[in-house]
Amino acid sequence: MDVMFMITCGRYIRSILYLLLLISVQFGPHAVEGVWPLPQAFTSSPERYPVNSQDFYFVYGRQSAAQQGCSVLDTAFKRYFSLIFPDHNSGSHSTTRNGHNGSPADRLSWTIYLVPFCVPDNLSISAGKASLNAETVWGAVRGLETFSQLVYQDDFGSYFVNKTEIDDFPRFQFRGILLDTSRHFLPVQAILKTLDAMAYSKFNVFHWHIVDDPSFPYQSSTFPDLSSKGAFHPMTHIYTQSDVRRVISYARLWGIRVLPEFDSPGHTTSWGKGQPGLLTPCYKGGTPSGTFGPVNPALPSTYRFMARLFKEVSSVFPDSYVHLGGDEVDFHCWRSNPDVRVFMQKMGFGGDFTKLEAFYIENIVNITSALNKTSIVWQDVFDYHERVSTPQQIWDLHRIIKAGMRVLLAAQWYINHISYGQDWRNSYTEQKKLVIGGEVCMWGEYVDATNLTPRLWPRASAVAERLWSDEKQTSSVDKAFPRLQDFRCKLLRRGIQAEPLYVGHCKHEYQGI
Amino acid sequence: MDVMFMITCGRYIRSILYLLLLISVQFGPHAVEGVWPLPQAFTSSPERYPVNSQDFYFVYGRQSAAQQGCSVLDTAFKRYFSLIFPDHNSGSHSTTRNGHNGSPADRLSWTIYLVPFCVPDNLSISAGKASLNAETVWGAVRGLETFSQLVYQDDFGSYFVNKTEIDDFPRFQFRGILLDTSRHFLPVQAILKTLDAMAYSKFNVFHWHIVDDPSFPYQSSTFPDLSSKGAFHPMTHIYTQSDVRRVISYARLWGIRVLPEFDSPGHTTSWGKGQPGLLTPCYKGGTPSGTFGPVNPALPSTYRFMARLFKEVSSVFPDSYVHLGGDEVDFHCWRSNPDVRVFMQKMGFGGDFTKLEAFYIENIVNITSALNKTSIVWQDVFDYHERVSTPQQIWDLHRIIKAGMRVLLAAQWYINHISYGQDWRNSYTEQKKLVIGGEVCMWGEYVDATNLTPRLWPRASAVAERLWSDEKQTSSVDKAFPRLQDFRCKLLRRGIQAEPLYVGHCKHEYQGI
Repeated sequence: MDVMFMITCGRYIRSILYLLLLISVQFGPHAVEGVWPLPQAFTSSPERYPVNSQDFYFVYGRQSAAQQGCSVLDTAFKRYFSLIFPDHNSGSHSTTRNGHNGSPADRLSWTIYLVPFCVPDNLSISAGKASLNAETVWGAVRGLETFSQLVYQDDFGSYFVNKTEIDDFPRFQFRGILLDTSRHFLPVQAILKTLDAMAYSKFNVFHWHIVDDPSFPYQSSTFPDLSSKGAFHPMTHIYTQSDVRRVISYARLWGIRVLPEFDSPGHTTSWGKGQPGLLTPCYKGGTPSGTFGPVNPALPSTYRFMARLFKEVSSVFPDSYVHLGGDEVDFHCWRSNPDVRVFMQKMGFGGDFTKLEAFYIENIVNITSALNKTSIVWQDVFDYHERVSTPQQIWDLHRIIKAGMRVLLAAQWYINHISYGQDWRNSYTEQKKLVIGGEVCMWGEYVDATNLTPRLWPRASAVAERLWSDEKQTSSVDKAFPRLQDFRCKLLRRGIQAEPLYVGHCKHEYQGI
Repeated sequence: MDVMFMITCGRYIRSILYLLLLISVQFGPHAVEGVWPLPQAFTSSPERYPVNSQDFYFVYGRQSAAQQGCSVLDTAFKRYFSLIFPDHNSGSHSTTRNGHNGSPADRLSWTIYLVPFCVPDNLSISAGKASLNAETVWGAVRGLETFSQLVYQDDFGSYFVNKTEIDDFPRFQFRGILLDTSRHFLPVQAILKTLDAMAYSKFNVFHWHIVDDPSFPYQSSTFPDLSSKGAFHPMTHIYTQSDVRRVISYARLWGIRVLPEFDSPGHTTSWGKGQPGLLTPCYKGGTPSGTFGPVNPALPSTYRFMARLFKEVSSVFPDSYVHLGGDEVDFHCWRSNPDVRVFMQKMGFGGDFTKLEAFYIENIVNITSALNKTSIVWQDVFDYHERVSTPQQIWDLHRIIKAGMRVLLAAQWYINHISYGQDWRNSYTEQKKLVIGGEVCMWGEYVDATNLTPRLWPRASAVAERLWSDEKQTSSVDKAFPRLQDFRCKLLRRGIQAEPLYVGHCKHEYQGI
């Protein structure tokens, strides 16, 4: 079984899907624009065709398994129509046309085929025909992104697309971005905007590091005190069930999975406020010091609480994976607590607290397994100070379950870490041993909605190309530079506050101030 | 003569100005809020008075020299009313009241006195009376800022102000921010927004580094080709005369001077596009290489051009100072050019190109002196690579004119240079030998409207406190931290996209995404 549900052969739709779009065709002088991340195989010619928003329709093909009513594609058509024609003042113009008008000689038709066998997704634009073959609706969404980047405006505002042939598929199946909503609260709008930008760079996993030491913004229906006492503010700095559902369904329409992380037994200070008895009381000189450490692994009540919490989490977050954290557990408090030490003896762990941690994690993994979820945990081989000061490869799918455990390795980029100058270049050339993918981690110590977007984009896009494109074709940073500059201007044009790479300008500067 | 026109004794208004504002008074439990930058003398008590927007008016005092019609204060009253009451939905409510209603016992009155002798500006808020004494209208504007920061809301949305006594004046007279609009074009809106935020931190000089090598966005009426050929785009990436006037008059209402910089003879690549013959042709192997160096100092036409350009600049920018640049002149091209070498011989400079540079600068200074402007130039003791990679103290008023030249020293903070973590702490403790002030430099290599605001704020505010407040009272970074956090939340509340200092939250998070 793969981690990815996307691009998996024939998993969603097994029959043929045709998507036709009809636009008028003329010929003119050439201009070629790039696509970011670079497709696996890309050929284009100077031959260009005008694209007129008034005559532009997405049309489901006759033999397509998906037809109008397929919400993922219906909404994708709408979104991409606006993205392709930012100047278009849509009045009564419908972006899709019900019925199959064929493709007269003076029309460019574009088709999405969804085929039930493993061939690369393909996009073809030529004088008489433009078609997109995609195995799955998700592949079709990625193809729409590619197509939208191929359409460009000349100096007079007319839209064009060049004759193009593209075969495409991702290099890695897991292409994630982590947002940390505990160190600073991110309003739902900031998350949705990030999902937009993720789709533009073909990211497909939103790793939601939703709670941590500083705050617990997730409003649990089972344990409402967790947020009412553990959030920065019980009303304004929380994610309600409805907020979470909104994020998940919004992400789904972009082909992005939401991987929730409820990190324990460490990083749980905020949990303790709304759940007395959950955390380990620390001792000093034989008496409780009044401070608390990680979750108390010695109490049966801990596991009863976790079972109920993860039962709720499992139903709220439909993804088959759940991230259990497990990083940076400090043993000092456990060691200070006499009850924990008694438990250690009883369990035969001696003085080895890594065994106690493994016992705890194993229990939580068993809880989530019983809920038919696959667990992911952090590779806890680094300490907090290293984490905030140096970017490094740090996580994998923990080998906690000894038998039958699938190993997932992912490199990550700590993009909250900033330095002066063109630091995207490092991300671009970073060549860690990626197994099934990687993710960009935007930890929240110094990041909130005020600076999230310019810190993330276009630097995360550099990572996106490592994750999507062919390694050999994208080995030159210097060749990537003008393409990334161009892509950054596209992001600006789409309202993403992506910061500049270096001196220069975009035709349409950011006007959001 | 001072550099600053602000806070100079009796310079603007010599008689007494009273400003009264009437608000209803009650007593309640206490809460004290801070002011950033810290006033010179500040005492407040837990005694607090409710402030009700419906009953709140700014009223000019009877004996005030300024009365309704004083545009600086009239507009300041309007702006600060909205800043003090962000929730107030202003319908027909007038923020000022014509006439002098006295101060009944149940009212808090607030007066601005403008006195013709040198005493510190004073703000006093007590049960029966609230008054602001200011020597000048500009001091009154700063006092309004201070007052606006004293008003706070409780958890139920009611406004309060505490009993407070403040004596205040700036530590340094020159408190500037440099924006670079050549490496990236900054839309006028981004500049205006920066002026707003500058006023909130009591900055008073906008150093407009308007042109440089990459682009010439200033649209000159005398030489329109400079921008039509030298800007990134001749229509969309320029500052028209009207744009410049708008910036200057907007800044003036905040008590901010606009110091224009037209940097030469180096940093002029963009000038050459619209002014053929201005730059020095570089030679290679005895023939012109096709590239150009600094402005050609050997040609009389150069000085005729500069005289006409600076005549225009002098009339467009009313400030008595003009910045001539003069930094980072590379002598290679001059040295390669045979005509320049002949000129050197003729002038008796031998092989010393610093003499040629001094000759050039002296000519330009004479041009601007004849226009009744005082010149400022960069201390050209650093090379380009140092500049972008390390923050350092780098500029003073050049000692080019040997006799009678006033020396202006200013430390600066290169705030475009970013590093991970709490780098505001360095700015806060930076203790260069400041003579008349300092400025924050936001060079534009990696900054445009997408990331200008979060990179500038609240880090520049840390510098602002060094420039405004008493050195001894503000020597502790740890004491400053919670105050700066609080001030950053105030900036958010005012719509300034100021980035977080560390983990935490504000009551009103940034919602601008």
